[in-house]
Amino acid sequence: MWRALELAARGPAHGPNPQVGAVLLDPAGRRIGEGWHAGAGTPHAEPAALADARSAGHDPRGATMVVTLEPCRHTGRTGPCTHALIAAGVARVVYALDDPSPTAGGGAGVLRSAGLEVVGGLLAEQADTIVHPWLTAVRRGRPWVTLKHATTLDGRVAAADGSSRWITSPAARRHAHRLRAQVDAIVVGTGTALRDDPALTARDENGGLSAHQPLRVVVGRRTVPAGARLRGLGGPLVEVRDHDPSAVLTSLAEHEVRHVLVEGGPTVAAAFLRAGLVDEVHAYLAAAYLGAGPAAVGDLAITSIDGALRLTVTEATIVGGDVLVVARNQEE
Amino acid sequence: MWRALELAARGPAHGPNPQVGAVLLDPAGRRIGEGWHAGAGTPHAEPAALADARSAGHDPRGATMVVTLEPCRHTGRTGPCTHALIAAGVARVVYALDDPSPTAGGGAGVLRSAGLEVVGGLLAEQADTIVHPWLTAVRRGRPWVTLKHATTLDGRVAAADGSSRWITSPAARRHAHRLRAQVDAIVVGTGTALRDDPALTARDENGGLSAHQPLRVVVGRRTVPAGARLRGLGGPLVEVRDHDPSAVLTSLAEHEVRHVLVEGGPTVAAAFLRAGLVDEVHAYLAAAYLGAGPAAVGDLAITSIDGALRLTVTEATIVGGDVLVVARNQEE
Repeated sequence: MWRALELAARGPAHGPNPQVGAVLLDPAGRRIGEGWHAGAGTPHAEPAALADARSAGHDPRGATMVVTLEPCRHTGRTGPCTHALIAAGVARVVYALDDPSPTAGGGAGVLRSAGLEVVGGLLAEQADTIVHPWLTAVRRGRPWVTLKHATTLDGRVAAADGSSRWITSPAARRHAHRLRAQVDAIVVGTGTALRDDPALTARDENGGLSAHQPLRVVVGRRTVPAGARLRGLGGPLVEVRDHDPSAVLTSLAEHEVRHVLVEGGPTVAAAFLRAGLVDEVHAYLAAAYLGAGPAAVGDLAITSIDGALRLTVTEATIVGGDVLVVARNQEE
Repeated sequence: MWRALELAARGPAHGPNPQVGAVLLDPAGRRIGEGWHAGAGTPHAEPAALADARSAGHDPRGATMVVTLEPCRHTGRTGPCTHALIAAGVARVVYALDDPSPTAGGGAGVLRSAGLEVVGGLLAEQADTIVHPWLTAVRRGRPWVTLKHATTLDGRVAAADGSSRWITSPAARRHAHRLRAQVDAIVVGTGTALRDDPALTARDENGGLSAHQPLRVVVGRRTVPAGARLRGLGGPLVEVRDHDPSAVLTSLAEHEVRHVLVEGGPTVAAAFLRAGLVDEVHAYLAAAYLGAGPAAVGDLAITSIDGALRLTVTEATIVGGDVLVVARNQEE
C-alpha cells in the first residue's frame, strides 16, 4: 500500500478525479503491475495496473489488487473498475479509502457479490492526507476552499499607497504558484481584479505557464475590462455576478471543481470566512513591517476576542525567507 | 570547548554579565575542573573552574583553561580573571570570543605578557549564538532590543472592542514568559500600561513569579496610577518621560541593562522600528481571524512597498497551537 500511495502522488492533484495508485501482486506476493490515475479521461489506476501486468506478460488471474481508493462501480468517462477487476479474474482487492461519491461508491459490495475477497481501510489515514480536499469536496458536494494571503508581520497586504509588489520573496511566490497548479479554480473579487490586474495563472519555476491552468473566477458585479490580463493566456475566465460564497461554490461544483483557491481581496476573504466556507488557510508572512495599509481580511462582524474565528495550525515553514503558516478549519 | 559551552548555558541569560563556561584540563588533557558564571557578583567561570579543581585535590599548575569568553582583566564586582589564572600557574588559555568591553577586554594580551600561551576564536560562532544579545549590547553600548507581539493571521492585536485576552494559547504565553525571565527590562507605552493594566512579571510554568524579574519600564508622559498591577509584585517600575527610543535605551544602558523586551503597544513598537532600534522580533501568530481591531505596529511613515522595513527570519515554530516567528535585523 505504501507503494500504491507513492504511485497515487504521481497523478495530478487538480481535476474532478482523485489521485489513486494501484499495485498488482501475484498469488506469491510478487509485484506484477503498477498504475496510477493521470487525470479525468485517462484510465483509472486499477485498469492501468492490469494493463501494466499484461504488457509484461503476467496473468492477473488469482492476483491481489492493492489500491488507495475503493474501485469505482460506475461508467463515467471510463468504464467501471469493478468490471475490469472481475473480468481479469483478480481474486482479492485491498484498498485504503471508501469512495464517498454517490455514483462511483459501493464498488466493494459489487466485488464481494462477484466472489472476490475485499479488505478496506488499510493505511486509510495516510491515503486521506493525499486526497483530503477531494474526499471532503465529494462528501460535502462543494469544493474544498483554501484561502491564501501574503502579509507583513504587522498584517498588511499592501502599503499605504496600495503598492504590494512584492511583499514576499520570489521563492515564496513560486511556492504559491505550485499550489495554483494543483487547484481547479482561483477566486478573486472584482476589487482585486480591477485594481491589481492580476493574471491568476499557474507558472512553473522558470516563469512559463504550467500545463494545468485553473479556472479564473471573478466574483462581483463589475465586469473585467477588455485588455485585462485575466482575459489573456491562462485558464478560462468565469465571472460570477453573485457575492454569496455559497452560491459561488455551488456554481463551481457544477463545473466539477473540487478545490478552490481564494486569493483575495479582503472583501472576498471576509465573505468566505464569515460563511464558514474556508477549509484551509495558506498565510505567507514576510519578515517586514509597513505600519500602514490594508489588512488581509475585511470586516467579519466580530466585536470581541471571544468571537474570534479560530483554526488549527498544521504547518509553519520557512519558504525562501518568508514563513508559510498552514491552518485548517477543524469543524468539518 | 563544547563542554564549556554547555556549562555557559547554565548561567542566567539576563544581567549585566554574559553567560560563560570554563573547563580546566591537566597537561595530559584530562578534565580536572569545571565552572560557569552564575550572575553578577558571583565568581566568573575561570575562578570557579580553578576552585572546582582544587576542591577535588587537583593542582592547576601547567593546566589549560578552556573558556567561552576571553578572560577579563579588570576588577569589577570580582577581581580580574587574568590575575587568578596567572597566580594559579595555568600554562595555556583557549577561548572562543574576544571580550568587547572597554574595561574588561584585552585579557589575552595581559596573559601573553605573563608568558601564557593564548589561543582565541575556537568555536567562536557557536559561542556567539549563546551570548549574541550581550555581545552586541556591549559592542554598541546600548541594549539588545527584542520586539514582541501577538496577533491573529489578519494582523490584529485586539478585537474591535479592544479585548485581547487571550489571542494566543496558554502554552504560547508560557513560552513568552520564559523570554521575560531572560531579559533585563520590559518596555511598554503608557497607552498599554493604562488600558491593559499589565503586570509585566515573568512567571514560571505554574504561574508563580520567576526568580529573576526584569525592570518594568513605562515610556510616555502619563503616570502609572496607584493601584496599577505595575506597582505590585514584580521587578522595579521605571517611568521614562521620554518617547525617544534612543534616549530610553541610553537611560537603560546606565542601569546595566543588556537586553530589552519591547512589548507594545503599536506606538512604542513603531517608535523603536522607525528609529532602527529593533534587533530581533518575536511574532506570535494565532491561527485566528478578527476582521477588525488594531495592528501590532503604528505608523512608520512608509508609503510604498519599496520602503518596507525588512528583517531576516531565523525561526518559525509551532508553540502550543500558535506560530512563533523569530526574525532579526541583519544591519548590525
